[in-house]
Amino acid sequence: MRPIDALARALSDGRVLTDPDVIDSYARDRTFVSPGKPLGVVLAASRDDVVTTLRWATEHRVPVVPRGGGTGLAGAATAGDGALILSLARMKAIRELSPADEIAVVEPGVITADLDRAAREHGLMYAPDPSSYEISTIGGNLATNAGGLRCVKYGVTRDSALGLEVVLADGRILNTGRRTMKGVTGYDLTGLFVGSEGTLGVITAATVRLRRVPERPPATFAAEFGSLRDAGAAVAAIMAAGCQPSLMELIDRATLEAINDLRNFGLEAGTIAMLIGQSDASDNEAVVARMERLCLDNGASFVAVSSSPQESEELIGLRRLAYDAKERLGACLVEDVCVPRSVLPDMIEAIEAAAVRHGVKICTVAHAGDGNLHPVFIFDRGMIEPPAEVWAAADDVFTHALELGGTLTGEHGVGVLKKRWLALEAGPVAQELQQGIKAVFDPLGLLNPGKAI
Amino acid sequence: MRPIDALARALSDGRVLTDPDVIDSYARDRTFVSPGKPLGVVLAASRDDVVTTLRWATEHRVPVVPRGGGTGLAGAATAGDGALILSLARMKAIRELSPADEIAVVEPGVITADLDRAAREHGLMYAPDPSSYEISTIGGNLATNAGGLRCVKYGVTRDSALGLEVVLADGRILNTGRRTMKGVTGYDLTGLFVGSEGTLGVITAATVRLRRVPERPPATFAAEFGSLRDAGAAVAAIMAAGCQPSLMELIDRATLEAINDLRNFGLEAGTIAMLIGQSDASDNEAVVARMERLCLDNGASFVAVSSSPQESEELIGLRRLAYDAKERLGACLVEDVCVPRSVLPDMIEAIEAAAVRHGVKICTVAHAGDGNLHPVFIFDRGMIEPPAEVWAAADDVFTHALELGGTLTGEHGVGVLKKRWLALEAGPVAQELQQGIKAVFDPLGLLNPGKAI
Repeated sequence: MRPIDALARALSDGRVLTDPDVIDSYARDRTFVSPGKPLGVVLAASRDDVVTTLRWATEHRVPVVPRGGGTGLAGAATAGDGALILSLARMKAIRELSPADEIAVVEPGVITADLDRAAREHGLMYAPDPSSYEISTIGGNLATNAGGLRCVKYGVTRDSALGLEVVLADGRILNTGRRTMKGVTGYDLTGLFVGSEGTLGVITAATVRLRRVPERPPATFAAEFGSLRDAGAAVAAIMAAGCQPSLMELIDRATLEAINDLRNFGLEAGTIAMLIGQSDASDNEAVVARMERLCLDNGASFVAVSSSPQESEELIGLRRLAYDAKERLGACLVEDVCVPRSVLPDMIEAIEAAAVRHGVKICTVAHAGDGNLHPVFIFDRGMIEPPAEVWAAADDVFTHALELGGTLTGEHGVGVLKKRWLALEAGPVAQELQQGIKAVFDPLGLLNPGKAI
Repeated sequence: MRPIDALARALSDGRVLTDPDVIDSYARDRTFVSPGKPLGVVLAASRDDVVTTLRWATEHRVPVVPRGGGTGLAGAATAGDGALILSLARMKAIRELSPADEIAVVEPGVITADLDRAAREHGLMYAPDPSSYEISTIGGNLATNAGGLRCVKYGVTRDSALGLEVVLADGRILNTGRRTMKGVTGYDLTGLFVGSEGTLGVITAATVRLRRVPERPPATFAAEFGSLRDAGAAVAAIMAAGCQPSLMELIDRATLEAINDLRNFGLEAGTIAMLIGQSDASDNEAVVARMERLCLDNGASFVAVSSSPQESEELIGLRRLAYDAKERLGACLVEDVCVPRSVLPDMIEAIEAAAVRHGVKICTVAHAGDGNLHPVFIFDRGMIEPPAEVWAAADDVFTHALELGGTLTGEHGVGVLKKRWLALEAGPVAQELQQGIKAVFDPLGLLNPGKAI
């Protein structure tokens, strides 16, 4: 009997898949990264399934690639030769939702937007909202420390994670953190697991913080600018005025054209950038009026302000189309640099310069309030991986981001796609310590090898 | 030549103190914990001094106890026999303060309130405000992940720490984190250092997040209640209504009496608890009016509302007197349990029951919005350490907090004082992993041995 047949026998019927075609669809994320030939897929339905799987993997020295919705953009969930894929997508229970304590205990396969909707039945929300939140899972969001549109006000996934239940590589159960808003008992193992891309253990439940839904629906503006510098200045002015936007997105001309091609919204010839902002404060209309004024003061040619929740949704809807619109242009390498907010215009100009220098089409959207930019490098859909000029342009972009005091990745993670630049940012001391931590949690190096660090 | 004389020679004149009486005053924190006989004190003035000291300590296998303002309440900075005390109090430079990026880069000896004042010159603030913030340092706040009054709205120290410069035990320099609002490059070493009580490395600089000062000064209320349950219900109602208080403090009868003895504010016979709350929202007067109404709806006998910033300060001033007022009653064992907010009244009642059961005087204040309580156990000032009945009552309090889903320490840390209960909360798997992490960073076990984990 092959070892994987023994695993299949130890789990319930149908939990282990070994058909190569089926495996292949579980071995990829949303990037172009080609997987290897994994051994099989486990569809875990419980913590016990995870324990059984990891004990088996340790016994047989089989690498394990944990996986949620497969929506990652860094190649962190792609699986190589001989690996076992451990899908947590069936662990979908919301074990507890406590309105009084404003927390929920959820399993990793819960779709992020489903948790948000469940919370809203109690007047609460789950704040982190990566653009993928209708298809990505809490487990994947935790593994990558996902950000999102609202995190300019409410923080990233780590800021909502209070405690974790984890199965270690050897099958032991670890409980980290707490159910309380504060706590400092020992080292912050919860924060360590968030963003570790499945390399330290497999999260089987998370205690997350919920927040009160603002009393009034958000008010929104969309401002058009004739230059990126003006749009960047408006962002700086809005943040400096203490407006506390709950969303602040910048869209460049190339992306606007792609969106306009998909759904004509009447893009003006002179519009080089659009800024979409939102306030969910109790005096949100006054705040949006101030933000409108600051846009006009900084050179906006036109500002639309929502007069109803529907109009507000329509303005945000344009932003939500960005990724789909770009995917129509070709294959995409999506990057994720983050820079100090004051140098956002410099970073955008550096991206444009890199596009010209290397003859590459780059469309950029930015979570501008956080200084987090997503330049999307477009290349021929027929190619297996990006051509040399795309990598060269990406190299320019990363190098420039680091020179500006920025980071390689604001919210997507390192995966395999950013490993080639990792040493530039982390440096040898940090990398050695991270390898040391990895060895403490996973001495055999079985969990998602080659990712994150 | 003794090894410490070699260290003194390697540093500038006057950096090393060896007079036993002088050493003793550097070997204590604000608890009753008796230090041992440390070897000496280094008054580090630069990162180079820290490197020199730690290289020397590694060479001679001397344990090192890093130290900031010495205001800790957990015995985390107390020094034992043969240890070298490394004071960072002279490293006071604010290396950078960037209003545009809303960050500062500060050395560990900067007094927390001084950073806040420096930020306010630019319309910014440093949000974490432990009660000790006029005498405690950023380094100590980072080492303990200090909380404070404002953290009900703005989070704890970890939420403001973006990146660190650290000297490792062997003298190597580690840079963690970033200058950006978001970032997910590798494991979260910044979060790991925050709260690690100097056991992993010595922080020599921190990049911290600043926030915009609210446009209007905060508005404040103080509500008197005839029962703790009513006060707890008012807290729950205020939080559930989404009022987002910027401060929400509960003071029990025993503490109110101590404050009234110190400064007579006309404490009524029927007042069992006082709730002091604040809003710094742009519509703060309306929010405070709502909170006032919710207090009255939940049985408050009287609510005072500030009509000016001065009155606001006076109301908060009562809360600020709590610790000094209690210190007049005797020696204090200050505890720091944190529970889910919904069980705050249960926890207060359990504290009162423990006081009666063991015949111990306990005064309690709580950061009620966070569920974080500080029961202060009063004992005879002549005693070297708390008598058996105080430990027995503390044992009851901790056990009850854990049964309610709470934690041993919300913001003060473990130090040596909470180690006797640590295994109850953390469990053997987490403790083993934390020891493993410690060994990665400090393989010789020289940094603040016996603390935190």
